[in-house]
Amino acid sequence: MSLADRVLYPDFLSRTMSADEAAALIPAGAHVGMSGFTGAGYPKAVPGALARRIESLNAQGHGFKIGLWTGASTAPELDGALAQVDGIEMRLPYQSDPTVRRQINAGHMQYVDIHLSHVAQFVWFGFLGKLDVAVVEVAGVLPDGRLIPSSSVGNNKTWLDQADKIILEVNAWHNPQLEGMHDIYYGTDLPPHRKPIPMTRPDERIGEPYLRCDPNKVIAVVMTNQPDRNSVYAAPDDTSNRIAGHIIEFLQHEVKKGRLPKDLLPLQSGVGNIANAVLAGLNNGPFENLTAYTEVLQDGMLDMLRSGTLASASATALSLSPTAMQDFNDRIDYYKQRIVLRPQEISNHPELIRRMGLIAMNGMIEADIYGNVNSTHVMGSAIMNGIGGSGDFARNAYLSIFMTPSLAKNGAISCIVPMASHVDHTEHDVQILVTEQGLADLRGHSPSQRAEIIIDRCAHPDFRSALHDYVARAKRSAVGQHTPHLLNEALSWHQRYVETGSMRAPAGPASPAGPA
Amino acid sequence: MSLADRVLYPDFLSRTMSADEAAALIPAGAHVGMSGFTGAGYPKAVPGALARRIESLNAQGHGFKIGLWTGASTAPELDGALAQVDGIEMRLPYQSDPTVRRQINAGHMQYVDIHLSHVAQFVWFGFLGKLDVAVVEVAGVLPDGRLIPSSSVGNNKTWLDQADKIILEVNAWHNPQLEGMHDIYYGTDLPPHRKPIPMTRPDERIGEPYLRCDPNKVIAVVMTNQPDRNSVYAAPDDTSNRIAGHIIEFLQHEVKKGRLPKDLLPLQSGVGNIANAVLAGLNNGPFENLTAYTEVLQDGMLDMLRSGTLASASATALSLSPTAMQDFNDRIDYYKQRIVLRPQEISNHPELIRRMGLIAMNGMIEADIYGNVNSTHVMGSAIMNGIGGSGDFARNAYLSIFMTPSLAKNGAISCIVPMASHVDHTEHDVQILVTEQGLADLRGHSPSQRAEIIIDRCAHPDFRSALHDYVARAKRSAVGQHTPHLLNEALSWHQRYVETGSMRAPAGPASPAGPA
Repeated sequence: MSLADRVLYPDFLSRTMSADEAAALIPAGAHVGMSGFTGAGYPKAVPGALARRIESLNAQGHGFKIGLWTGASTAPELDGALAQVDGIEMRLPYQSDPTVRRQINAGHMQYVDIHLSHVAQFVWFGFLGKLDVAVVEVAGVLPDGRLIPSSSVGNNKTWLDQADKIILEVNAWHNPQLEGMHDIYYGTDLPPHRKPIPMTRPDERIGEPYLRCDPNKVIAVVMTNQPDRNSVYAAPDDTSNRIAGHIIEFLQHEVKKGRLPKDLLPLQSGVGNIANAVLAGLNNGPFENLTAYTEVLQDGMLDMLRSGTLASASATALSLSPTAMQDFNDRIDYYKQRIVLRPQEISNHPELIRRMGLIAMNGMIEADIYGNVNSTHVMGSAIMNGIGGSGDFARNAYLSIFMTPSLAKNGAISCIVPMASHVDHTEHDVQILVTEQGLADLRGHSPSQRAEIIIDRCAHPDFRSALHDYVARAKRSAVGQHTPHLLNEALSWHQRYVETGSMRAPAGPASPAGPA
Repeated sequence: MSLADRVLYPDFLSRTMSADEAAALIPAGAHVGMSGFTGAGYPKAVPGALARRIESLNAQGHGFKIGLWTGASTAPELDGALAQVDGIEMRLPYQSDPTVRRQINAGHMQYVDIHLSHVAQFVWFGFLGKLDVAVVEVAGVLPDGRLIPSSSVGNNKTWLDQADKIILEVNAWHNPQLEGMHDIYYGTDLPPHRKPIPMTRPDERIGEPYLRCDPNKVIAVVMTNQPDRNSVYAAPDDTSNRIAGHIIEFLQHEVKKGRLPKDLLPLQSGVGNIANAVLAGLNNGPFENLTAYTEVLQDGMLDMLRSGTLASASATALSLSPTAMQDFNDRIDYYKQRIVLRPQEISNHPELIRRMGLIAMNGMIEADIYGNVNSTHVMGSAIMNGIGGSGDFARNAYLSIFMTPSLAKNGAISCIVPMASHVDHTEHDVQILVTEQGLADLRGHSPSQRAEIIIDRCAHPDFRSALHDYVARAKRSAVGQHTPHLLNEALSWHQRYVETGSMRAPAGPASPAGPA
């Protein structure tokens, strides 16, 4: 497919150039807003060219770095390449790249971990400074200069609107039939001029299928033909199947009690293998005519759409394996009737999440016995990925579910701990915890009641008695019985892991602070 | 004023009875939804009568307790009386009563601390079980049985709607001219049937001035003539004046930078002496034509309305001192043009808070150096009051400000600590911290950048070097540099306070873990 097939706005043809030429237009110290959400729709060529330029200039002592803003995580070609050359001064909002993570945890990169629904408006408000350059991947350009989005929308509307200069990557790899799948809402405004967002159903279209773009700001157009990251999901295993089973049983129970309609409420699902297994469970489960209002459409949801279990899905990005992507392209006419891709300030908007009453299902790193959830940090200090949209969904959902296997690191870590080493979701926002051991329904329970439920239902049996012992001793000596803690022991399991590589107590005399 | 003046629905006259007779209609184990929000509009007579009944029955070995649900805090006549006789099994959502607090912290009462905007819908959803009895104070009854709310609305709409049986207290103390000040929105529904809430301005009326009530459910009408709690606020002192000064200077700076309109955005203010002092500062400050969209209208806001600095205020309750209440009654025609009282699911609704772009100003107990805020717990274990609406506002506001003096307990406690002993507002939700020392603007900063800003701007000088020392040592040995912590020392300041009565290190050799 030639340039002329994808870029129908004639003036842009003269602005076509190589990725290296385009990358040369990005100044040192710039705030750069790049497209990309969960490995979909990120620019494929300019970031690598920019990394090469930075590497070369830094070798000459220039100290070239940028501030890198995206939708969410991208791929090795973007985050990885720029981090590899130490080219990122500050990164926001969500990332999951190993090199970026290493740089942040080494103290070489600043990372600002923002709720995904907040990012766009913080830029509109001027809270993050001026956006200098947007680098946005699109599937094509219309004759009037409007843009056909590619496999994610993320913050692209905001980057195009707010940046002084725009670099477009037109990726011929994307199916041209993506055209029409997107819904870009332009009714947002700054307070005090905001109006209600006119959406009441997950499949409703309230905007336009194209991104607006001031052609005068476009300084470069780069042609690419490269696939998205398209990572493979692990097949569901016994642990994830058991988590899925507990959730499905719980949802059936809620329907029976009249607390959920029989076709449930719109589903939100985090990304990852456990989440994907839960979707597989739902696809084989008792529910029909479901809907999804979520951030990312992954393999499990595509399967549910294909089988008809899921009637429609709204997201801001696709995050499909190569096999699922092939299926998506093969049946794109079918999927286009059932999928809407929106800007992330809409896919994650508290107003819409609360109004539509979502069932939010998100992974976590650990929960404590009182129901506080850590989604972002390892041992209190090191970042894993980021909060993503989990806060947008958990706080505003009809039902807020967090899930994890009860053990990590081959059993060295208990994912149920006395005190979370970092809190991203407070006790006020967590209703349901699930591990392969069972499901804890925390609604209407006080912290000390929650502790009994969480330990007995969710903790691995190897750690249960130590957790009960912690609570019993805390009840004897804490300054208050509302949330009894032993301050000098609350984080000792994490400290022991740091020191010994395991939260388990060493062999020998029983330790009061952890399990044998 | 006679019964016949206040209760115009003829059938209710025959259901008039004493508080003791009404209290006898409340069964043991009942879930009882009582009116009351921040010491306003709570039932004055039935709770005390119920407490006497419980005391007498429990003396006979009956083990009589109830589940007590309210709008928010009430008064000694309600929370205090029932807690005194050990009559509350479970309490929700917010409380501030010393006897209730003592009971919770002794482990004798369960307390479920829920975001105030969540309470009503959790009851609609059936998450908290069946509401058996509503005990609601009103200012009067219309000929058709509808109710004139009194000085707070809170969850009364929900209690009246959901309870099987209703006990009304008609309080002749309330000014009959309260009629028309309230705006009760009946457009809520359960998902998936919810619609946008049609409000775009703080002073907009979208409902009805009266509470609907099924007269068939009313089992008792009790007449009272008693004032609300009407606590006195402390006069602003040097510390609170300095906090107010920092906030006003910051808001002026934001206007100058074009990040706020010159008449700001709607103000939300927490309750208490510091908040009241900030309002006094605003009243004497440079801004005009302000609006408020808040939970509670306290003395400071009434002053601002009287002076004209504040054009209008929306709240769910009045919380006025006796002097301010006198002024309110004296000029009620003036205030009625400028005040709207709403149900708390509307005053605190995320959809509206985000749409209108509030400036949220809330108190806190402590913040840590990375910007996590504790609003509820003392030394990690003991409840103080509860989260109230602070989470509803902080998460969804345009600007989220938390404030506290830098020291507590005569200097024994630093309100800026290495790690918060409980987290109610995560690093993702906190933008601005203020103490009398200064203001920390955390927007767009990583955790380790925030630590420098918070310590230098907000911590008391006595504790600054110990906090910097903590960060420096954490940077040397933490497992990650994103949020560097020393796990075995993070809560040591709190532990030292528990052990010695002070976070300050004892005299003698310098301790690495705290200030001299």
